[in-house]
Parts: sequence; C-alpha cells; structure tokens
Amino acid sequence: MEINEKTLQNTIDAIAPLDEKAVHEALFIQENLAKPPKSLGKLEDISVQLAGITGNINADLSKKRLLVFASDNGVVEEGVSSAPRSVTFAQTVNLTRGKTGAATLSRFYGNELFVYDVGVNADIREEKVINKKIAYGTRNIAKEPAMTREEALRAILVGIEAAVTAKADGISVIGVGEMGIGNTTTAAAVLSVLTGCDPAVVTGKGGGLTEEAYLRKIDVIKKAVSINEPDADDVIDVLAKVGGFDICAMTGAYLGAAAERMSAVIDGFISVVAALCAARLCPQAKEYMIASHESSEQGYRKAIGELGLSTIFDLKMRLGEGSGCPLAFRVIDAAWFVLHNMASFDEAEIDDAYLSEIRKIDAFTVKGDK
Amino acid sequence: MEINEKTLQNTIDAIAPLDEKAVHEALFIQENLAKPPKSLGKLEDISVQLAGITGNINADLSKKRLLVFASDNGVVEEGVSSAPRSVTFAQTVNLTRGKTGAATLSRFYGNELFVYDVGVNADIREEKVINKKIAYGTRNIAKEPAMTREEALRAILVGIEAAVTAKADGISVIGVGEMGIGNTTTAAAVLSVLTGCDPAVVTGKGGGLTEEAYLRKIDVIKKAVSINEPDADDVIDVLAKVGGFDICAMTGAYLGAAAERMSAVIDGFISVVAALCAARLCPQAKEYMIASHESSEQGYRKAIGELGLSTIFDLKMRLGEGSGCPLAFRVIDAAWFVLHNMASFDEAEIDDAYLSEIRKIDAFTVKGDK
Repeated sequence: MEINEKTLQNTIDAIAPLDEKAVHEALFIQENLAKPPKSLGKLEDISVQLAGITGNINADLSKKRLLVFASDNGVVEEGVSSAPRSVTFAQTVNLTRGKTGAATLSRFYGNELFVYDVGVNADIREEKVINKKIAYGTRNIAKEPAMTREEALRAILVGIEAAVTAKADGISVIGVGEMGIGNTTTAAAVLSVLTGCDPAVVTGKGGGLTEEAYLRKIDVIKKAVSINEPDADDVIDVLAKVGGFDICAMTGAYLGAAAERMSAVIDGFISVVAALCAARLCPQAKEYMIASHESSEQGYRKAIGELGLSTIFDLKMRLGEGSGCPLAFRVIDAAWFVLHNMASFDEAEIDDAYLSEIRKIDAFTVKGDK
Repeated sequence: MEINEKTLQNTIDAIAPLDEKAVHEALFIQENLAKPPKSLGKLEDISVQLAGITGNINADLSKKRLLVFASDNGVVEEGVSSAPRSVTFAQTVNLTRGKTGAATLSRFYGNELFVYDVGVNADIREEKVINKKIAYGTRNIAKEPAMTREEALRAILVGIEAAVTAKADGISVIGVGEMGIGNTTTAAAVLSVLTGCDPAVVTGKGGGLTEEAYLRKIDVIKKAVSINEPDADDVIDVLAKVGGFDICAMTGAYLGAAAERMSAVIDGFISVVAALCAARLCPQAKEYMIASHESSEQGYRKAIGELGLSTIFDLKMRLGEGSGCPLAFRVIDAAWFVLHNMASFDEAEIDDAYLSEIRKIDAFTVKGDK
C-alpha cells in the first residue's frame, strides 16, 4: 500500500460512531422542551446529530467555514458546458473577493470561505486562493482516464488536510463546495457508475444547455464510462477514471470532517456526489453530513436518496460553489440555540408565585379546562 | 353595510398589484448577476417579489415582526386536543417571555414578536400581551357557530390594525402566527369548507392524538360543518361558523399587510388556512405572501396548493406559533442582500489591469478555452 492510500485508510479508520451519551443527553432535553414531541422536526434532529458529532452538548459551534475546491475538467473540450473553461479561473479568484453567489452569501451569513486550487487551468497568483494544484485540469474522460490513481489519492488528501486545518482553526462545521466548469458532467459520470444508473437518468443541464448539447453531454458520459471501464466497487478507481480533482478533494473533506468530528454540510449536485463517494468509502461518514438544499440539477435526488438523507431547503437552486451551505449554517445555529434556550415544560409553567399573585386580581380568571 | 364590513372592504380595495417597474428593475439586476440564469432559484424570485411589494429596489427591509394571535376554542370540550385549554394562556404569556419555540427562534434571529390576545379564556395581566380580546374563547362549533358575523369582522380588524401598526413602526415584513389549543380543528374545518374537501383529507393530529381521538376530531369537524351550514362562497360566514378568533385575525393580518405593501410570511397549517381565507377575500393578497416551511400537519399541502405557493423550508415542523417565520425572515434578508451585493457579469470579470499585470508574471498562464 503506497503512502497516500495508507493516509486515506488512516482517516477512514479514525471515523467513529456518533457519541451515544451526548445523543441521549440532547434527546432528553428535546423531549422536555415545552412543545408537542418532535414538533420542531429537523431542528430537533440536527441538534441531536450535532451533539453526537461533537460529543459535547455544550460545544461552541460558532465558527464555520465553507471550503471550495476549484479545478478544471478536460472533458469541457467535448462541448458539455455552456460556460467557457476560463470561468473556472475567474470565479475561483472572484470567490476570494466576495463577488460570486456563494461568496456573497458567505459575506451575508458571516462564515469563513476558503478556496483551494486543486486543478485550475492557470497559475493563480491571488494569494487568497490556496494552491494545492495537482495538475492544470484533468484529462478528457471521453478519451482517457481523468487522472491517475495516485493523483486521485493526492486530491483526496487535499480535502482531508483542509478539514484537519479547519478543525485546528477552531471550526466545528464545514461546508463543501466547488468551482469547476464541466463538473456536472464528471459528477454525473461518477454517480451513474456508483449507482448503476443510466447516465441519462442522472445527467442534468448544469448551468444551462440546449437540448442538443444536453444529449451530447449524456453521450459523452456514456462514452467515458464505456472507454474507461471504472470499477464501481472501487471508489478511487471511479474518481480517477471519470471524476475530477474537485470531487476527489470534496470526498476527502467529508471523510476528514467525520474523522475530526466536525459536521459537513452538503451543497448541491457535485457536493452530494462527493458525499456519496465518501459514504461508499466509509458508511459511517454519513452520520456527520447535513444536506442543505435540494438542488434542481437532475441527479441530485438520486444521490441524496442513496445517502438516505433529507434536505433543509427547497430553493430550486443550482448554482454550486457551496452556495447552499451558508444558508444551512444559520439553520444549524438556530437548531443548536433552541436546544439550549427554549423553555422546558417545567420552565414554561407560569411560576406559582406569578399565578398566585395574578389570581388575586379580580379581573383574572382562568376558566379551567373542561 | 355595517361599519366593520365597510372597513374590511376598504382594506381589500387598497390592495394593489405589485409595482411593475420595481419588478422589472429587480429582474434586470438578477439577469446580470454573474451566475447561470435562475440558478439562485427562489432567492431570485423572493428578491423580485420584495421589489414589487415595496415598489422600491432599495427598500430597507431590516425590521421584521412576528405577529402571534392567541385565542381559545370552545370545540376543545369535544376532546379534539392533546393539550389542556389552559396551555393557550400559559404559552401566550410565555411567548412574551422568550420561552416558547417561536419566541426562542425570534430571539435567535432578532425579529420583533408581538402577541395579541384576541380570545384567550383568561384575563391576562401580562402587559406585553396586547389586549384585543373579542370574547373568552369561541363557542363549541360542534354545537353552534363559533362566533357571530360581527365578532368575526371585529377579529379580522384586529389583524388589519396589527398590520397597519407594524407598517407605522417601520416594519416591512411580518410573520403570521397563532397560539390556541384546538385551532388545528377549526383550521381544518375552515379548509374543508373552502375547498370542498372531505374533512378526513385535511385533518391532522395537531400536537399529537391517539387514533381514536383523531377519528373523533374528524367526526367533530363533520358535525360542525353539518350543523352550522357555512356558505363556502362567503369567507366571513365560514370563519364565523367554524373558525376561530385567531384565524380571523390572521386573515386580517394578511390583508392588512398587502394593503400596506408589506410582505407577509406564512407559518404552518393554521397560518396557511388564514392565508387562503385572505386570498379568497382578495386574490391579489397572494402576491404579498411568502410561504416559509412545509408543515407536517396534514392539510398543509392542500392549502398551499390552493394558494399556488411553494415553501422555502422542509423541516417537518408542526409547532405553530409562527415558528417558521423567523427562519424565513433570514432567507428573505439573504435574497435581498444577494440582489444588491453579488457581482454582475461585468464586475465578475477579473479587471483588465489585474489581468495585464498578472499576465506579465511568467508563472501565470491561462491555457485558453479549447
């Protein structure tokens, strides 16, 4: 086993179940809050999950970071994208300047935004973009494997390390996003192989495609799968042959988050496909994931269904970049706040002193339950 | 036409279409933001709606208020609720003390919370509860009309006035919530009459019921409709005969919000039934509504479908109190922020100076679109 494969295995081995004691503590609190049982729905579930993830009912979850992994995809030369490849570079830089959709939402919600170059087709001198470049984009999957197995492992390690760094910086919740023209094609290819689905079922129109280009995109994915013959039981093989550096790094980020006992928020289609890759490598990693929104990109539902997760938002978004994560971060905060600040049944009783006092007032009459 | 009926009609007459100019301005901005068209989904729709509602692309939407209308329901004596009637009183007071679910979420999100007593079965001396009591609860709809037509109109006016007051206080977005043991029964009765649905289809288990109590609840609603013979084409008649003071006031709040050009956020089941009442009285009022979350209470989907609206959240919540509104308020803020702060396609270009400069650096290479 070579060094990178071993590092990945060590991360997977470090992923433990949720902390049962903290889960039970949170469940006990929720059951005693002054509300019909389970009436706060997913807000309750999330608070219990967060307790289990951190193992600490009083954990400070205030620091959150959206990780965006940027890279180019050789398959763009097949005409599968509406945007030119250079948009990857432009938006990677724009992400660090607060200009893109996810960056604007991160500014609004006040979370950190870290941008990693894992394979952009340019040398980026913007110092805020963290240089972890594996190569200047992948090769064209319609003709050959996107990358070597070694490159896939190295890209996965970029994500693991990003999670480890986040934890060291005091982050408790990460979001997992991407920037990469052509990556709905690679994500659909990976998803179709992992699930055995016909590519037509899990392929969407990405940023927007004509019907003709959409059909071409499906054909390209079919060709990529047929030429490269990825082994569906070997996630690394699938990622290397028909994936991208971004999806690899995101897969690593999910695994790293779970190993570090941080929760990882899933964004849209590419993000959920990477989450599925992580879950295939280590099913326990699922317990650390929170799905933010149901992306409008075709294929999202298939992937989230495979994970057995359900989303917080239905916003018909399909922007990527991790744009759903900042929205979810605030809901996570709300769920945690409710667990700690809502009154219990005992506390919600108007206290006896108040009742005694107010009952002396003539005007006050509780007419009693019939 | 008596005075209250005329005041209601004046409010309805004041409801105007969305401002077309502001709608087009917002649409133009959205089309030029650096993203695939429509890729921010409902965040885009909401921003355009807000522009049309306020008629001002630069409106200050920072002040938001959750209005909670509290009242008791005579039908509780039929055993249709899991909680005793006194919980209405206790939680009405607790709402003003930040203790309940909606109050806790309001504290977290920082919105105002105003609580109106429109018919609680007690004289409340907590001064933060605004006294607009019509009566000490409604009469039992299984035996007689809940209230007179005059009382229904007075309760509706409470909601209209609450909206007018909010506007005068600088509020631009209201949430519409309630507190009233037994009000999933009255809401289901109103909904079944307005839609012609069998009560069994639109009746849920509220805070939680045994199967036996649930079947009784359905029978009670059938009986209420059969005894009182509400006129489905006369919303006031329906509200008076099988509704509640809370649903009346909420209906008024939606109409008042639309007349005052504020957006009104729908919470759960009772809130959406009141929204439907408002829309039946004035279809244009729908354009001012934003649906926060898909309540788990059976019947919600029917009502939201009748309104033709779709929700932001899917949280499996069924608490009521307006608890979904604070969550939605923040998404509304995010939508408005993105409209004003995300870069346009022009702005998203890395500027020529930067490009010229960085291109002088040997290490920098854009490899160009293939």
